[in-house]
Amino acid sequence: MEKRQDTKRMKHTVSLPPSEKRKMRYVKLNVLPDDILLTVRQGETILEALQNAGIEAGMEIEGDCGGLGKCGKCKVRVLSALDSPSPEEEGLLDEEELNQGIRLACRTKIEKDLVFYAGETEPGLEYHQVLETGYRPLFQLDPLLSQQLITLSLSSEEEGGLADLERIKLMLGPEYKDIRASLHCLRKLPQTLAKTHFRGSAVFHDNCLLDWQDWEKGQQRCGLVFDLGTSTLVGKLINLQDGSEVVVLSCVNSQMKHGSNVISRLQYINEHVHGLERLHNLLIKDLNRITERLLELGGLEADDIFIAVAVGNTTMQHFLLGVPPYGIAEAPFPPVVIDGLVVKAADVGLRLHPEAVLYTMPIRSGYIGGDLISDILVSEAAEQQEEIVLGLDLGTNGEIFLGNGKRLLTCSAAAGPALEGAKISRGMIARAGAIEGVSLQDGQLHYRIIGNIQPIGICGSGLVDLTAILLDIGIIDYEGLIHRIRKRDATPLVHRIISRGGVNDFLIASAEESYDNRPIYLTQKDIRQLQLAKAAIAAGINTLMDEMGIGVQDINRVYLAGALGNYVNPISAIRIGLLPKVRPEIIWSLGNAASTGASMVLLSKEHWRKAATLAQFIEHIELSYRVDFNQYFIEHMDFPEDSKK
Amino acid sequence: MEKRQDTKRMKHTVSLPPSEKRKMRYVKLNVLPDDILLTVRQGETILEALQNAGIEAGMEIEGDCGGLGKCGKCKVRVLSALDSPSPEEEGLLDEEELNQGIRLACRTKIEKDLVFYAGETEPGLEYHQVLETGYRPLFQLDPLLSQQLITLSLSSEEEGGLADLERIKLMLGPEYKDIRASLHCLRKLPQTLAKTHFRGSAVFHDNCLLDWQDWEKGQQRCGLVFDLGTSTLVGKLINLQDGSEVVVLSCVNSQMKHGSNVISRLQYINEHVHGLERLHNLLIKDLNRITERLLELGGLEADDIFIAVAVGNTTMQHFLLGVPPYGIAEAPFPPVVIDGLVVKAADVGLRLHPEAVLYTMPIRSGYIGGDLISDILVSEAAEQQEEIVLGLDLGTNGEIFLGNGKRLLTCSAAAGPALEGAKISRGMIARAGAIEGVSLQDGQLHYRIIGNIQPIGICGSGLVDLTAILLDIGIIDYEGLIHRIRKRDATPLVHRIISRGGVNDFLIASAEESYDNRPIYLTQKDIRQLQLAKAAIAAGINTLMDEMGIGVQDINRVYLAGALGNYVNPISAIRIGLLPKVRPEIIWSLGNAASTGASMVLLSKEHWRKAATLAQFIEHIELSYRVDFNQYFIEHMDFPEDSKK
Repeated sequence: MEKRQDTKRMKHTVSLPPSEKRKMRYVKLNVLPDDILLTVRQGETILEALQNAGIEAGMEIEGDCGGLGKCGKCKVRVLSALDSPSPEEEGLLDEEELNQGIRLACRTKIEKDLVFYAGETEPGLEYHQVLETGYRPLFQLDPLLSQQLITLSLSSEEEGGLADLERIKLMLGPEYKDIRASLHCLRKLPQTLAKTHFRGSAVFHDNCLLDWQDWEKGQQRCGLVFDLGTSTLVGKLINLQDGSEVVVLSCVNSQMKHGSNVISRLQYINEHVHGLERLHNLLIKDLNRITERLLELGGLEADDIFIAVAVGNTTMQHFLLGVPPYGIAEAPFPPVVIDGLVVKAADVGLRLHPEAVLYTMPIRSGYIGGDLISDILVSEAAEQQEEIVLGLDLGTNGEIFLGNGKRLLTCSAAAGPALEGAKISRGMIARAGAIEGVSLQDGQLHYRIIGNIQPIGICGSGLVDLTAILLDIGIIDYEGLIHRIRKRDATPLVHRIISRGGVNDFLIASAEESYDNRPIYLTQKDIRQLQLAKAAIAAGINTLMDEMGIGVQDINRVYLAGALGNYVNPISAIRIGLLPKVRPEIIWSLGNAASTGASMVLLSKEHWRKAATLAQFIEHIELSYRVDFNQYFIEHMDFPEDSKK
Repeated sequence: MEKRQDTKRMKHTVSLPPSEKRKMRYVKLNVLPDDILLTVRQGETILEALQNAGIEAGMEIEGDCGGLGKCGKCKVRVLSALDSPSPEEEGLLDEEELNQGIRLACRTKIEKDLVFYAGETEPGLEYHQVLETGYRPLFQLDPLLSQQLITLSLSSEEEGGLADLERIKLMLGPEYKDIRASLHCLRKLPQTLAKTHFRGSAVFHDNCLLDWQDWEKGQQRCGLVFDLGTSTLVGKLINLQDGSEVVVLSCVNSQMKHGSNVISRLQYINEHVHGLERLHNLLIKDLNRITERLLELGGLEADDIFIAVAVGNTTMQHFLLGVPPYGIAEAPFPPVVIDGLVVKAADVGLRLHPEAVLYTMPIRSGYIGGDLISDILVSEAAEQQEEIVLGLDLGTNGEIFLGNGKRLLTCSAAAGPALEGAKISRGMIARAGAIEGVSLQDGQLHYRIIGNIQPIGICGSGLVDLTAILLDIGIIDYEGLIHRIRKRDATPLVHRIISRGGVNDFLIASAEESYDNRPIYLTQKDIRQLQLAKAAIAAGINTLMDEMGIGVQDINRVYLAGALGNYVNPISAIRIGLLPKVRPEIIWSLGNAASTGASMVLLSKEHWRKAATLAQFIEHIELSYRVDFNQYFIEHMDFPEDSKK
């Protein structure tokens, strides 16, 4: 746990713009229903935080009194636990409102992570936890998109009939003599030059002039990053001048209704004539929706965005492009294309500038996708020559990498969706109401719940914590069976074991304790699902170690990424055997490394080249062909014996 | 005149495929209403010629008897003068049919250039003279489009899950390792690979796989060339494997209705909000219509064509791209773009393969367009180090180049449309019924008429010939006035001089002698128009010679291109002062050099690079800024005195 705090501190040092690097404490503010996640200064009021982020206009919660607590119009509905209302709030709000969590944005100080709803209607539960960017290596900014602020002479007379494009080249100097211009740009160039009075921002991609825009547009040039998760889509608006994240949004991947994982979606497109088209369109619709909100919150228009980088697993990247991934459904799982692509964003249906360019991350194979390449890029594993790095991206599939710049092995272990909460009776993804962490204090379980509300279910990191604790106190044995054990440690919790049809389940929260008044259990079946998942990951790690000819003691660093990887307690993960027995202090969280890697590409051509090299360099070990993997898988079904005994 | 026959012999030697290089005489066969121009062997029957060209199916004139002259079903209507009908024809056709020129295609031998109508309806006069390709330098074929015939193993199993595109790269070997694929291609690649049983033709442009097609499609891969004349559009289907011209078609540029020259069209778009859009659309519609017929006659489909090269003057190339050429209307005449462009053909509206690529020729300035760059490319003037080359592209504008690889000057002289037949009372472009040549035999004028029919009017080359003859015999004096002169030479023609309102006109053909029963005159006003046109050209040449510091005697070679340039009699052109007084044997015709240059680019990447270099290398002398030009212009209004006297 200490390690994780270390990591968090590091995150801020690296990912925030220099001006923010003062010794301040930061907390997360989550704004519903738009699902905006902000990192704000502890102690700010909600109104200040929104104003500092420049998004108050979109929110329409600003009152008339200028934040003095007098008009009572900046009402918000806070979902997280709150301190007592301020005197102003007690005066301006009635008791029912106060009980419902209604507060004034100008009076509510943000002391810890806080979720609130900026509107009058019932929030529902649309909020998801967006992984923080987390660790991002330092690098020189050299974005895929470049621009120049240019002033031309007002008329071409003095340049003797020089063509419009030639005048721009002349002004830019010899190194720009080979630039081209897109047809779209040429078609409106005379008009835009005249309209901007020959003073504007020339936007280039790869030596091609995409547009000539108002000078002012060039002052805050942004790009987009899309992280195409199987369950969750994340969009980030990134400032190309300083590399900062301007706005981050996420939403459930609408493809979920046609299958919760890659396999079931591949099955869906195989069985439906227009299946691929439908999944492609759903994805594009989601991304356009995210983009629209990102732009609205960032004060930009679609025409201002010329560049986007998308990352996801191999199948998701094929869905994005509308390229049929049928082959990935069956061994040997061939995709259609593995190169990182550069296409017109409009050609896949994204509504950005008509000439905007979309990059997709390079891929290694059917199950080693752009997301793992991103992870490796962020981890800088390939820059290491001596140290051995183990990396895990834990989502529906567990992707693993092991090695360094001399040799880097990768594999994909079908962990199943248990680690993301699916197939667990009250499992859920990491969103408001999910138990994301469990601790044992004075013989009682304490839950950390996303959004600080009553629990609705349990997500992967909570499941791992809870299982680790129940293993420690003997309620779960090494084979995974729940026992009514009579040990001293277990006594205060034994009453939570409920026998149903000859099988024991563990009551996490009673009907009264839960958000929706339905009891939450950890069932015997849930534990079996977890065992299958963690066995697959552990066996994958063992197989790579064998292939590399090393043991656990040779691993110098472990990187965790992905939905679970970022939030799991490393000690709990080791306890249940999901991770090998390494020293917890060598375990680092990479945060949402997939999107971080994509933004590194967006911000630096060097990383785009590196990603391509990486995709060629890494070796892919296909586990389904390995006898040793199957052997390890069976061995790892059991939980490890408690090492403390 | 002798020189011109030399040139023609040379043309055949160079431009026909090797198998055709036997000692044979060729004549031109023109098929209406599709306006197909074929070069066929003298003495073949019409049916044989069509069958040899592989276009009989489209014509539906094939009878039932297999060409034995028995069924009488292969009727065609011949417009040219004919020998007596064959006995079979006399038996199978009635007298009215014979009088109308109806013949049997299987019995009609083609002894000289022949125009016929392959159908029952009235032909109208849709036939235009398409310039022959003419001289084309020899070069190594290295087309802009490349393809590979590939057989992959049937399944990817043995290649361990390799991506489809990677399998293609692997088969092609290391030099293809960096190829990309278009999104369109990737989207259907799995299906097309399966459909072709993994054996097909991979089509590449610039390292990008555009499509995977049937093996057979790769056997005759063609590209297109478009010559965007202000009055006439020409399309050529070119075989990329041997460089031969498969089919050539032309049509009137439908933009004519919005102005017969560049200036009036620029005026049109300035005065109409959707003017540019309308002119662009008219052009694209024409080009698509030409393409459709070219493909039909070539037995190909739109999906088979991946590459096209377009050439024209600066304004026409802007119209093609839909890029607004407003600037070209006024000094200093700036265009928007001068680079040769590479765009998606679909983006300008051309209906070829969805991924087809369109190249446009590089440009020098507002009035030195891709057509002149083409001319220079064909002339190889820039390859000369010592010889001085003068080149003229004579159309509505006269473009002139002078120099060699050390220095190459260009200018554009607004000759006006007189040389193309416009503004001449019975002037017309070179199409059926136009008097294209005039000679004096035994004191009588003999006319050479396109299509061997009765005359309808006179085109540029006929006008120059006629004027030269009338100058020689004194009916026109050096100031351009028509006189009732009493010289012996003139006597037989004097009765043709008609006084009308105090001005003399010259009767070319009486009502009875003409096709449409309307007399054809050369009016005093016509001669004034010609004087203006030739003065502009001659003054342009003088200005360039001054700039270069040379005299007429320093010119080693003169190249003629363009509608008039190709057909004008050089001796007549010198006589009227259109050309400087050089020895006629140094004058060469380049044929339709604009389209020849474009096909050289289509067939060789080296020429594409050369064209770009040329456009940068040549100097543009803007005549409107030159005092010496105006001086020369006035001097050249008179015709030269007859040097023979």
